[in-house]
Amino acid sequence: MPRTDSRSIHISLPSGDYDVLVGAGLVDRSECFATDLIGADVLIVTNETVAPLYHDRLLMALGRRRVEACVLPDGEEFKTLETFSRVIDVLVRARFHRDVTVVALGGGVIGDIAGFAAACYQRGVDVVQVPTTLLAQVDASVGGKTGVNHPGGKNLIGAFHQPRLVVADVATLETLPSREYLAGMAEVVKYGAGLDEEFFLWLEQNVDRLLRREPGPLVEAVARCCECKARIVEQDEKEAGRRALLNLGHTFGHAFEAAMGYREWLHGEAVSAGMAVAARLSAKLGHLPGTDAGRIIDLLDQLGLPTRPPDRPASEIIELMAMDKKVLSGRMRFVLLRAVGDSFVTDDVAREDVESALQETGAE
Amino acid sequence: MPRTDSRSIHISLPSGDYDVLVGAGLVDRSECFATDLIGADVLIVTNETVAPLYHDRLLMALGRRRVEACVLPDGEEFKTLETFSRVIDVLVRARFHRDVTVVALGGGVIGDIAGFAAACYQRGVDVVQVPTTLLAQVDASVGGKTGVNHPGGKNLIGAFHQPRLVVADVATLETLPSREYLAGMAEVVKYGAGLDEEFFLWLEQNVDRLLRREPGPLVEAVARCCECKARIVEQDEKEAGRRALLNLGHTFGHAFEAAMGYREWLHGEAVSAGMAVAARLSAKLGHLPGTDAGRIIDLLDQLGLPTRPPDRPASEIIELMAMDKKVLSGRMRFVLLRAVGDSFVTDDVAREDVESALQETGAE
Repeated sequence: MPRTDSRSIHISLPSGDYDVLVGAGLVDRSECFATDLIGADVLIVTNETVAPLYHDRLLMALGRRRVEACVLPDGEEFKTLETFSRVIDVLVRARFHRDVTVVALGGGVIGDIAGFAAACYQRGVDVVQVPTTLLAQVDASVGGKTGVNHPGGKNLIGAFHQPRLVVADVATLETLPSREYLAGMAEVVKYGAGLDEEFFLWLEQNVDRLLRREPGPLVEAVARCCECKARIVEQDEKEAGRRALLNLGHTFGHAFEAAMGYREWLHGEAVSAGMAVAARLSAKLGHLPGTDAGRIIDLLDQLGLPTRPPDRPASEIIELMAMDKKVLSGRMRFVLLRAVGDSFVTDDVAREDVESALQETGAE
Repeated sequence: MPRTDSRSIHISLPSGDYDVLVGAGLVDRSECFATDLIGADVLIVTNETVAPLYHDRLLMALGRRRVEACVLPDGEEFKTLETFSRVIDVLVRARFHRDVTVVALGGGVIGDIAGFAAACYQRGVDVVQVPTTLLAQVDASVGGKTGVNHPGGKNLIGAFHQPRLVVADVATLETLPSREYLAGMAEVVKYGAGLDEEFFLWLEQNVDRLLRREPGPLVEAVARCCECKARIVEQDEKEAGRRALLNLGHTFGHAFEAAMGYREWLHGEAVSAGMAVAARLSAKLGHLPGTDAGRIIDLLDQLGLPTRPPDRPASEIIELMAMDKKVLSGRMRFVLLRAVGDSFVTDDVAREDVESALQETGAE
């Protein structure tokens, strides 16, 4: 594969600075894993799907270090306190000290578990994120959210723990199953739809090249999303205010996932449908011109992503939303739209409007 | 019991400000649990020993709030991921949101588990520490260290999570078993011996009143220790430098506890013996006048605390110290003394000197 330009995004937070490197073929480049960032002891946390593809290549790039590996089963259903505990066990058994670096090689699930283990091992050791899914590259690896699921809800147990470095290699996306790749695209669309109209326009123009997974446009898209997220996280590390805008489509999306038992829909697919419902709700409430809602739903359609809620009663979905951890003191908060690229947070939405936005199934 | 004066120590950290209230009878005073600090939803985490004594009184003081309780078994052996997980289960089952306040009512173990659960539930909710042991009042409740043990070592899993408020009621110390009370005194001595000569002198003069648990001197001692710790934690929230001075006696002490399987010795007893060995080692290396080492060991003796290592081979103790999480990249760090009230951190200590300090069993 021809080398494409790499990009580096610097993130500056009260809890520390770090870079996000975006490029093609980065997992093979030892210069990406500099010794001033990563010490002599490393634990690679990965899963059974990713390990055969990239573990040995990453090991080569890490060079003369003491590297142990913890290979977890693949799947959101394994994002639990039990697998977190397995990572801790490996760290303890290897007698790693506070200067160990945990390297998370995989998708968002691996990044979340490994990041949470790094946050908690000896009250915090470094983590380097090497995301290998589009979703993880544009979302999970930047911002420092880590954690695991609880039977009662997603991400109920976790910590904020910023990475020491993020290495997003778009070449690893070549091996991603089509459905998972497209689900990641839902998060890419989210940045454009909610925060960056210019980027949304670029996406509309480049949708075919992105569907072909061309490295150049991929580097551009991933870097743009990371920049977008970085600027927001810098303003609001702990999600008191603006950071909530990153949750466009997520209040609905999380409930859709929960309604389907976290199995039938991928996270990105749920976010896609959630974004479409949020756009419809915004239009219904008179905040968003119908043409803008149409553009968002069209782009998601072109990407082959779901734009309707799952086939469940609206009351069940609303009950699940009420349990979402983003609900503050019992009031549901929604990210709604005023225009493409212009979103806002509100808790001033009547239950009936939410219900009817969920129930609308007519064609757009 | 007559009312004694209360003291309030303000702690100012980058991650937030909070007060430590020290007084007698505070668990009954609703004004200590103000609504601007503690919201409408509360989970009290306590244990089977403390619950019958103070749960209902605290519940009264908390007044018109929705209060749930999680009562854990009593003992360091229950400071595990399993009990942490039980606290999380109760929070989820009660459907508490991000605005819940976890109130830790008990000793250091309860404070550590409840604090860690609060650190992780929904990536962080408020915790109020209501320590009911001397050890927890002078040490565990201030500084934000939380966590649980791992079979491979103490406190290997945890987080820094500062409390919203600390309410240290010295009247709760009346019900403390004598041995546990005295073990807490070891930590009190630690502040004087390592950091505050004037306080050490005050302790020498007030040892009898403290042995009688008089509320006045107790408020003075607890407040002085909290102030001392607060000033250090303010300078060094995450233990890069000065905070390590709080570990006088702990490098040895943790190894003594581990050697005894965390059963025969209480933490404070191990710290007492560790402090005595650290004083001897300091004198042996020519850092500390022998008379100063003698004063420290005398005060510990007067309190009926151990001043010798457990009956185990020195090599075993040293091996256990090497696994302690305070060991950075394989070098053991010690807190040693130059004088009463003047401590420093060093990793420049020969193994033979450590061994012989451990083996010295002659009378002082």
